[in-house]
Amino acid sequence: MALTIDQLNAASPAEFVALLDGVYEHSPWIAERAARSRPLRSLPHLKHALVQAVAGATRDEQLGLIRAHPELAGKAMVAKNLTAESTHEQNKAGLTQCTPEEFAKIQQLNAAYNARFGFPFILAVRGPRGTGLSKKEIIETFERRLHNHPDFELGEALRNIHRIAEIRLGDKFGDEPALGNAVWDWQERLAAHSDPGYAEKGQLTVTYLTDAHRACARQIAEDMRACGFDSVEIDAVGNVVGRYEAAAPGAKTLLTGSHYDTVRNGGKYDGRLGIFVPMACVRELGRQNRRLPFGIEVVGFAEEEGQRYKATFLGSGALIGHFDPAWLDQKDADGITMREARRAAGLKDEDIPKLKRDPSQYLGFVEVHIEQGPVLTELDLPLGIVTSINGSVRFVGEVVGMASHAGTTPMDRRRDAAAAVAELILFAEQRAAKDDDSVATVGMLEVPGGSINVVPGRCRFSLDLRAPNDAQRDALVADVVAALNGICERRGVRHTLEETMRAAAAPSAPAWQQRWEKAVDALGVPLMRMPSGAGHDAMKLHEVMPQAMLFVRGINSGISHNPLESSTSDDMELAVRAFQRLLDDLSTEPARQRP
Amino acid sequence: MALTIDQLNAASPAEFVALLDGVYEHSPWIAERAARSRPLRSLPHLKHALVQAVAGATRDEQLGLIRAHPELAGKAMVAKNLTAESTHEQNKAGLTQCTPEEFAKIQQLNAAYNARFGFPFILAVRGPRGTGLSKKEIIETFERRLHNHPDFELGEALRNIHRIAEIRLGDKFGDEPALGNAVWDWQERLAAHSDPGYAEKGQLTVTYLTDAHRACARQIAEDMRACGFDSVEIDAVGNVVGRYEAAAPGAKTLLTGSHYDTVRNGGKYDGRLGIFVPMACVRELGRQNRRLPFGIEVVGFAEEEGQRYKATFLGSGALIGHFDPAWLDQKDADGITMREARRAAGLKDEDIPKLKRDPSQYLGFVEVHIEQGPVLTELDLPLGIVTSINGSVRFVGEVVGMASHAGTTPMDRRRDAAAAVAELILFAEQRAAKDDDSVATVGMLEVPGGSINVVPGRCRFSLDLRAPNDAQRDALVADVVAALNGICERRGVRHTLEETMRAAAAPSAPAWQQRWEKAVDALGVPLMRMPSGAGHDAMKLHEVMPQAMLFVRGINSGISHNPLESSTSDDMELAVRAFQRLLDDLSTEPARQRP
Repeated sequence: MALTIDQLNAASPAEFVALLDGVYEHSPWIAERAARSRPLRSLPHLKHALVQAVAGATRDEQLGLIRAHPELAGKAMVAKNLTAESTHEQNKAGLTQCTPEEFAKIQQLNAAYNARFGFPFILAVRGPRGTGLSKKEIIETFERRLHNHPDFELGEALRNIHRIAEIRLGDKFGDEPALGNAVWDWQERLAAHSDPGYAEKGQLTVTYLTDAHRACARQIAEDMRACGFDSVEIDAVGNVVGRYEAAAPGAKTLLTGSHYDTVRNGGKYDGRLGIFVPMACVRELGRQNRRLPFGIEVVGFAEEEGQRYKATFLGSGALIGHFDPAWLDQKDADGITMREARRAAGLKDEDIPKLKRDPSQYLGFVEVHIEQGPVLTELDLPLGIVTSINGSVRFVGEVVGMASHAGTTPMDRRRDAAAAVAELILFAEQRAAKDDDSVATVGMLEVPGGSINVVPGRCRFSLDLRAPNDAQRDALVADVVAALNGICERRGVRHTLEETMRAAAAPSAPAWQQRWEKAVDALGVPLMRMPSGAGHDAMKLHEVMPQAMLFVRGINSGISHNPLESSTSDDMELAVRAFQRLLDDLSTEPARQRP
Repeated sequence: MALTIDQLNAASPAEFVALLDGVYEHSPWIAERAARSRPLRSLPHLKHALVQAVAGATRDEQLGLIRAHPELAGKAMVAKNLTAESTHEQNKAGLTQCTPEEFAKIQQLNAAYNARFGFPFILAVRGPRGTGLSKKEIIETFERRLHNHPDFELGEALRNIHRIAEIRLGDKFGDEPALGNAVWDWQERLAAHSDPGYAEKGQLTVTYLTDAHRACARQIAEDMRACGFDSVEIDAVGNVVGRYEAAAPGAKTLLTGSHYDTVRNGGKYDGRLGIFVPMACVRELGRQNRRLPFGIEVVGFAEEEGQRYKATFLGSGALIGHFDPAWLDQKDADGITMREARRAAGLKDEDIPKLKRDPSQYLGFVEVHIEQGPVLTELDLPLGIVTSINGSVRFVGEVVGMASHAGTTPMDRRRDAAAAVAELILFAEQRAAKDDDSVATVGMLEVPGGSINVVPGRCRFSLDLRAPNDAQRDALVADVVAALNGICERRGVRHTLEETMRAAAAPSAPAWQQRWEKAVDALGVPLMRMPSGAGHDAMKLHEVMPQAMLFVRGINSGISHNPLESSTSDDMELAVRAFQRLLDDLSTEPARQRP
């Protein structure tokens, strides 16, 4: 019999601990403390209560929890020796039948890991899809995590323990993330298409109108048709547009979607998650033969990343009438113009203006996206509600001082270009930290031709400043630029500063942000409101209709634009359920309240 | 009739101003204020009093002085049009017979200069030897100075005005720096020899035992013989050793000299000045048939810079028995071993140990060297007395944080490697400034593969720390390393730090430092005591005998290891006269007081 939340709520504290026995390794105190959060609203709520119990524990308790786990090398030895032990986890761990080399490698990594951190290496070997990591993935993760800062690695160990617990709870509750698995599998299948030069290396790269890109469009269209969309088409910029019509003609439409192109050697979820989550919702509606009082239009945007051509947001831009015909003459690295690439793909330039949507026909735009940042994973929260897509300004600059002999130039006679930039870095860091949700980054930094014994005469840098609204961003920019001027004035050095990019902030429409909040809360998932530091297709639609985004936790510190980008099918499941809730709630809103 | 200091001392203030009319352009206030420094002890004292009057003036007065000068472009126009104006300066300025292109270029530079600084370009066109700069030199200087910081350029304009005044005073006083000119000319002639690949480009490069290097040795030996040294030889490491014997046999010897090798594309004065200044003294003694109660041994050291082979201080090291036979197997960039190079030069390895001096036969070691730093030029002082050759420690290091998305990583969740290094740079700067004469430099700085939108995960840097004594250096190192540890701990980043070099400090022997002070003071030149931030041959001799150095002002901010390295023949004259004074004073010291 599967466990239920009702059972847990009704249990005595001791029964509660017993019912959750085996979820966390030899640490009944976790369930004991989580029991105090009852009544529990849902399985996600239970998971959160357990996570909170560990987060609130002492460091010694946390280390005790980690050390309660058997060593992976031990597991590998067991697997190697083909003993009787063969749990569900072990079978799926990829550690069966280690070669002697693999076993030696794991032992060596294990010794180094223990020496560095003082606790055993914990890895949720069933992985983000629950079906098990390969030996190669396990060894690579081991190697990678060896380089982590000890504080960070402690958190990573706990996060893996929570993931193990999540999978065990899924088993106990008989709760398979079927919708999340479907989304995961669509993404996995789509990732089979990659541009030449990357595909061979097992890297994912899908840029505008390449063969792989067009194969992706066909794949998405096929998946959409299988889900029961009423119409599916690839439009004049390569967007894949699926429509699921309303219960009655003349109703407005909810627009949603994200992009299916990728950066070079990118991740499988960036953009694509926002196509497949609503697709899963439509599939469920279709299976139930259910129609809503509004239509649903899911768009797989053809281009957002600006990789092959400099034009970015080409897919979502086309829906608001932003398509600069001059872009057609841009050439890719092989000298192929966008016009030629489009012609080869059978796309007609004259049809592009027809893609512009009439905002009055739409309720608004929502977009689901993987977070691409560390906030949700570090807070152990699966979903985040976006308050705004940050506005940004970028600069590249150079401070020019005077190169001089490091030994013979007294400290008070220097015009050290690098020291001036060092002051700028620290000012920008402190100034951004004073705001809510501003960020400032000096990502590029170099003393060109610097020598160990020469006071830097030049120092090049970049500056990236972002904030959730334009006024806050502009105040940040003004303060940082003023500080740079002041630093250079005081130090007797000069500088150049060239603005290379400026993008307006796109605050979420309050009503739509509240719909996401309501939907997430209904799942028993704690609310986390946060800005989006990265740009998204929603920025474009923002210009013509209300919009709001939902973020899904990314693991591996939320890394993105990287093959390590990932989430779990459990989190994807929650995203689908939140989207379903939003659709349900929107359906029951009186028509006059709907936008 | 030439002007004399006695005349100036006897003059009324108004007469004083009248006697100095024309030295500073239309600015009688300078002489008026300098008059208050009377009685003047010497022409260098007068120059200093005038310089001090300008240094103590208001910025408006300084700008007034600068603006009182005619524009160089105007001079060029006059020259181009071949009008009657043809002053001494004009003739030597190289601006006669400008081509239309040169004239246009000067006009263009002049317009840009005025726009940038708001005052005319002032250049002492008679140059550091007093014989005039070429048109090419003038135009290059113009172009270079256009890039200076305005504060620095104001100082550079004033320094050029003081140089113009110095030349005019030389004319008024009938005071030709004959000894300085001789030293200048020896250096100029020696600079005709340069290694292949550099000679063709007009660059000076003389590395160990190349043809150019051996030609230099022969040239120095020839010049020494012409000066009347009793014996001159090229020794087993390539040092040129000239001896001028004492009045009586059995007397001790004063050892002096510096190196004649250069860095690649280096300057003409680094090292060589310290050979030719004592050579000029010996020439004068020889002309007077004068013998001192001690011998003088002037050594042109064959190697100090470590350019062709990694062995540095090879020349001076040999005199204290430092020659590692393993060095003979070192290869240059062409694969030629030092052994082969030495054999080709006819130098016998077995003779090297014989070069070791018996310290009991020597009074001590003194070395004259161009400053290679900005201190003397910025203080408008021709000579500096070295208190110590700084001890140093060098490191290369890397901070490793965590690369993350610049937009999506909140300020409080970053592990920014560059920000950590920025803190280190500023700490090191402030910590060194707290000491007398310590210096700290981060000369190499790089975020490898940095991107504008990525929080730096790695940042590489170098660290060069120096102080006048080992205890002060070690305290500086300890504090900076502790700060780095603290910064990394606090920021949750890790780092590596590799010590690549450590050299002990060489404090000047007090008695010898005082001899230099007495000699400089006797010239009426203000005393400036300062450490040497760079290493010198004196560091080697320091290990076996007392030593003290004299620095000579370098112009162009004291730049060295660069073709722009320069001094003036007037300053070289003062160095010769100071050396003569030191010899004279040492001769009259009772024998028991001499070391």
